[in-house]
Amino acid sequence: MIITLTTDFQDFYPAEMKGVIYSIHPEVIVVDITHNILPYNIKQGAFILHSIVEWFPEKSIHVGVIDPGVGSDRAPIIIDCDKFMLVGPDNGLLTPAAHKVNKFKVYRITRTFGRISRTFHGRDIFAPTAGYLSKGMNPEEIGVRIKKWVELDLFDVRTHGSLIQGEILHVDSFGNLITNIKAHLLKDVASLFLPEYGKTIPLVEYYQEISQGELISIIGSHDLLEISVNQGSASSLLNLHPGDKISIMIQ
Amino acid sequence: MIITLTTDFQDFYPAEMKGVIYSIHPEVIVVDITHNILPYNIKQGAFILHSIVEWFPEKSIHVGVIDPGVGSDRAPIIIDCDKFMLVGPDNGLLTPAAHKVNKFKVYRITRTFGRISRTFHGRDIFAPTAGYLSKGMNPEEIGVRIKKWVELDLFDVRTHGSLIQGEILHVDSFGNLITNIKAHLLKDVASLFLPEYGKTIPLVEYYQEISQGELISIIGSHDLLEISVNQGSASSLLNLHPGDKISIMIQ
Amino acid sequence: MIITLTTDFQDFYPAEMKGVIYSIHPEVIVVDITHNILPYNIKQGAFILHSIVEWFPEKSIHVGVIDPGVGSDRAPIIIDCDKFMLVGPDNGLLTPAAHKVNKFKVYRITRTFGRISRTFHGRDIFAPTAGYLSKGMNPEEIGVRIKKWVELDLFDVRTHGSLIQGEILHVDSFGNLITNIKAHLLKDVASLFLPEYGKTIPLVEYYQEISQGELISIIGSHDLLEISVNQGSASSLLNLHPGDKISIMIQ
Repeated sequence: MIITLTTDFQDFYPAEMKGVIYSIHPEVIVVDITHNILPYNIKQGAFILHSIVEWFPEKSIHVGVIDPGVGSDRAPIIIDCDKFMLVGPDNGLLTPAAHKVNKFKVYRITRTFGRISRTFHGRDIFAPTAGYLSKGMNPEEIGVRIKKWVELDLFDVRTHGSLIQGEILHVDSFGNLITNIKAHLLKDVASLFLPEYGKTIPLVEYYQEISQGELISIIGSHDLLEISVNQGSASSLLNLHPGDKISIMIQ
Repeated sequence: MIITLTTDFQDFYPAEMKGVIYSIHPEVIVVDITHNILPYNIKQGAFILHSIVEWFPEKSIHVGVIDPGVGSDRAPIIIDCDKFMLVGPDNGLLTPAAHKVNKFKVYRITRTFGRISRTFHGRDIFAPTAGYLSKGMNPEEIGVRIKKWVELDLFDVRTHGSLIQGEILHVDSFGNLITNIKAHLLKDVASLFLPEYGKTIPLVEYYQEISQGELISIIGSHDLLEISVNQGSASSLLNLHPGDKISIMIQ
Repeated sequence: MIITLTTDFQDFYPAEMKGVIYSIHPEVIVVDITHNILPYNIKQGAFILHSIVEWFPEKSIHVGVIDPGVGSDRAPIIIDCDKFMLVGPDNGLLTPAAHKVNKFKVYRITRTFGRISRTFHGRDIFAPTAGYLSKGMNPEEIGVRIKKWVELDLFDVRTHGSLIQGEILHVDSFGNLITNIKAHLLKDVASLFLPEYGKTIPLVEYYQEISQGELISIIGSHDLLEISVNQGSASSLLNLHPGDKISIMIQ
């Protein structure tokens, strides 16, 4: 049984969550997805959770904590997707991953497991919830079913003829720009024009097709349009960061 | 059985420690606490070890390696707190965590487990010690009891009337300043005045009480005074870092 | 059974590799070596794999992904060293570690395990290969034996009398410069002269022999010459980085 952790806190905080989880369920495997989400960037966290769920064994429990509203009245929730479960705040972080399945149930966490600090629900609510779920406790024993929750649409792009307006969801450690523009919108496309930069860039099959330092686009490993510089940082070159809009014209 | 690692070396060095530990005891679970301690910052490491021990299962073994004196005659030690054990250099790093229990025993490590490099006792002394302890070896089989060791007081604050002089123990990845001023010193306090900055800041219950970008104080998840900027970095704003002094006047 | 991961991609990509591995073999232990290799720096990755293999239990499987040629026709390979196995691209990354044993066999991976993206063979080829090898599959069932592969010599230093010309293989998180100059070349040496800097620096036994801030050299924990500043960064002081050449005159 696997519990994964996706947060915007590096540092020793994820380790305290692991301590809590192992105290409840010593046989579980805890896997760090990333703790480098930009602080409070719910959309980036949602993209990563959406990306990773399909690669983990069935019945894995994915905990996400990007939680600017910690301590307020935003609900702590469990989403039961049957194939996997999600645990975290009700701020849209978990819903894109949930929509990878057709039907899911959402529960507001009502049970408490010890003292709850004002600022660290990752350790005091989400970690113990995941720990008990991994031991076989049902969501019904921890929360109450709810019918309304916060939705977040990662893939809301606009098209006007050959113009597609999307957004940067993520910049990886190479500086590749991962957009929210899906591969199927780019069938038979050979190159893109970036109107804001006055640049035409090829849509290539793999990085080595073009020379080092040149701007390219590629369908990345998550079936999304990525903009890259071969052996360089597209993020630095174009000064684009997670959350920024991007327009492309297909050619 | 869990072994945790807290060091100031990122990189592949912690992985070599894990290799050594798994070679001795393949069934153990190794958990990284953090490897981002500021180089040689014993106090910051001591604070983190002090913070995390209570969240891990009983009988966990916590290895700490912030070790500017590696290769000199500073002793390598085991501290047996009964509920948990600590392994690392005798430079104060381990003692605040040890004092979370009333009684503990300190051993100087005398047994060796293979060749010892001049610069990496984490791999050559502390990792094998933790590995064998986790397999059930007694501290007496690895070291000799000692009666003197280096103490370090993390919570040495001075109060003059309403003035409290403390210190920044840690800056987390959000830029929150974690001080060594304990919650009980701030009962019924509504706001703080920072004389060095001429600023009055509220002591709030949770981050969302105030608007984005504003300076606040809060009792954090370790029952210590923290100074924060809602969705910003207090460390950058006040130019304060681990080890810096801070004065507050309670109001 | 242990699988280790050494890559130049921080971020959630290593986590997807773990998901794939655990989906194939839930009982395996996955250990991160580092994901902070400088982007595309094959030599630095090769040095780290070369360093760590000896510290892990026999039969461990070490996956390395520094792969600027992903998607091109560079081969994906398995190297079976009997005591351990290596999995990754055929670009020299794996061969220095392989040469730690006298005889090894190299296989080009030909079997596929699901859809293969153009840009992430770490997840789509190397992770499943390691997963199935860890479950007991033979390299012959996954690839075909090959007789030619890319070699990489990490320790190619030139000596002219007392002058040794080497290279910086790695800069660790303290800023220590790890060179490719082996300890045996420095027997009975008391100090080094750095002609490019006009500096003579002592070769010491441990860091505390000299005062804080001073430049020293030391035989590090991997039996290589390291240049350090006691409690400071030699990399910043000398402006030297992985891949840079360095000349020393022994005295």
